[in-house]
Amino acid sequence: MKRVRVEASGSYDVLIGPGLMNRVGELAAQVIAPCRAAIITDDIVQGLYGDQVKESLEKAGFAVELWAFSNGEKQKTMETLTRALCWLAESGFSRSDLIVALGGGVPGDLAGFAAAVYCRGMRFIQIPTTLLAAVDSSVGGKTAVDLPAGKNMAGAFHQPELVICDTEVLEKLPADLLRDGAAEMLKYGMLEDEALFDLMASGAWMTQLEETVAKCVSIKRDYVMQDEKDHGLRQFLNLGHTFGHAVEKCSGFSLTHGQGVGIGLCMAARAAGVEVEWVEKGVHACGLETKSPYAAKVLAEAALSDKKRKGGRITLVLPVKQGECQLKTISVDELPHYFAKGTGKEACK
Amino acid sequence: MKRVRVEASGSYDVLIGPGLMNRVGELAAQVIAPCRAAIITDDIVQGLYGDQVKESLEKAGFAVELWAFSNGEKQKTMETLTRALCWLAESGFSRSDLIVALGGGVPGDLAGFAAAVYCRGMRFIQIPTTLLAAVDSSVGGKTAVDLPAGKNMAGAFHQPELVICDTEVLEKLPADLLRDGAAEMLKYGMLEDEALFDLMASGAWMTQLEETVAKCVSIKRDYVMQDEKDHGLRQFLNLGHTFGHAVEKCSGFSLTHGQGVGIGLCMAARAAGVEVEWVEKGVHACGLETKSPYAAKVLAEAALSDKKRKGGRITLVLPVKQGECQLKTISVDELPHYFAKGTGKEACK
Repeated sequence: MKRVRVEASGSYDVLIGPGLMNRVGELAAQVIAPCRAAIITDDIVQGLYGDQVKESLEKAGFAVELWAFSNGEKQKTMETLTRALCWLAESGFSRSDLIVALGGGVPGDLAGFAAAVYCRGMRFIQIPTTLLAAVDSSVGGKTAVDLPAGKNMAGAFHQPELVICDTEVLEKLPADLLRDGAAEMLKYGMLEDEALFDLMASGAWMTQLEETVAKCVSIKRDYVMQDEKDHGLRQFLNLGHTFGHAVEKCSGFSLTHGQGVGIGLCMAARAAGVEVEWVEKGVHACGLETKSPYAAKVLAEAALSDKKRKGGRITLVLPVKQGECQLKTISVDELPHYFAKGTGKEACK
Repeated sequence: MKRVRVEASGSYDVLIGPGLMNRVGELAAQVIAPCRAAIITDDIVQGLYGDQVKESLEKAGFAVELWAFSNGEKQKTMETLTRALCWLAESGFSRSDLIVALGGGVPGDLAGFAAAVYCRGMRFIQIPTTLLAAVDSSVGGKTAVDLPAGKNMAGAFHQPELVICDTEVLEKLPADLLRDGAAEMLKYGMLEDEALFDLMASGAWMTQLEETVAKCVSIKRDYVMQDEKDHGLRQFLNLGHTFGHAVEKCSGFSLTHGQGVGIGLCMAARAAGVEVEWVEKGVHACGLETKSPYAAKVLAEAALSDKKRKGGRITLVLPVKQGECQLKTISVDELPHYFAKGTGKEACK
């Protein structure tokens, strides 16, 4: 088992290793005296791991109840959050109890947000069950739901007490969910670890999941610790995301976040004018596409519709060389130019 | 103009004085560079002060939009919060913009909560227009909405950048709204300032509003600075509230918070076994009732239905002598005993 220590406004461990799902209660009890615990998850994850986590917590002395909502990004709303909060209140949970956020990014973000605001904040632990949640959303304290006007537009910074990541759970994931996580892992490599990127490109990461996930979490941890509230350095973690999110949006979200980010990483390299073959090779090796199916103009319009501030500015993350990137703040008016470069076509002036 | 400085996780001034409503823009611009500003208020307050605040902010260079919801505690819900957040998003407000919470406790708490979670937190200023909001809810960073199961059960700790309290606005308030604020001011006197309590009891506070409000805010500030997140000392501010809230609840909230707290302060003195006449005199002088219209048994049941934790514990604030109180943590099973003493009747064992 690997242990990555995060020292933010709250300090906590991210535990990564095989078979941890059966040890959730024991591991939680090491940092939280047994109390009432509310597992919040979705119906798919409930079917897979609900009983296992509940029993493990009960064995360690927690009094456990579970609430599940329907699986899917469409459920990540203020309405589902409200239902979760009403359930917590009706069940008599208090501020000194514990929330267990069990699942992928949607249950993790939503349950974390519920923990941030129920009784103005209670403790929670994250148990990510997807690779994307393991290397990204479960670490760093960003919790949120979507609003009709945009993703993650309502939320809170609220650090968990513990993150438990069972690599055996990750190994059983279907290929599409592995690809989604791989896109973020490639991102960490591009940001600052050439060896990690090469490991991803070689495919060898699949047999070294514990070490590779721990490496990714460590990189994210370093950004979070230096900029918990996302005012500066943490923006580096958006590498590939401005481009990728536009791709996702143009697809009506039929392309996943990971698929968008894979294309976005390649677009960022092209937009920066650095060697793109290295990036494309890695992205391709992870089973992801490298080129946008949408034209630069359409993508730029999608990106701009998110940035209603006229005359506003936006910070892009652009690769400098392998394992190194820079922040570049531009006017939103310049955005079409970067999208044109990103799709491989210079913009007409 | 009085200035009370609050040093919490964010530092800010509470400005108290006559004619400040016309100077909102100028005062805000001293701490926040002009940006987009979203006034969130209710329809009653919009009619009274909406244009005035908007024009003052615009004169100082802010680009202002206003959103109002229907007046009343019944609107302090997750649904209204969601509508406010969707309006902010549709209007294209960003994390670097400003929310102006204008009104009494309901708009203040709701707009503050919106500021806490929109884009995971943006800056806000409080402009309380009721005495209760001026001396209590607008200071200290507690924001919230109600859930069906209880008041203020979803919320966040989020400190404002500035609080602006126009005493001329307070002077125009109808008697019932003044009484609601007076109940909290009596509380501050009972907690630690005999002279303040006597000033309230004499009625002289009405002609010394600036000084008296500033005194109350200073007392609250001291508690908030020592215990921002309400884990200990801040519980003193609940003096009269466990009893008073039960009274409010039994009345189906036809009695206001202030009316409940007035009775609650007298009940706390009786429950503590200290001289109650002094308290009753002050409460009565402020136009508030001193005795519960409901029997101890009914009140205790109402209080217990809020505390579903079986075998749980609750902390009461009990007067020791004039200007001094203590915390007493009891089992919820002992609560009926204290309610019986509070209503002036010993409980049957």
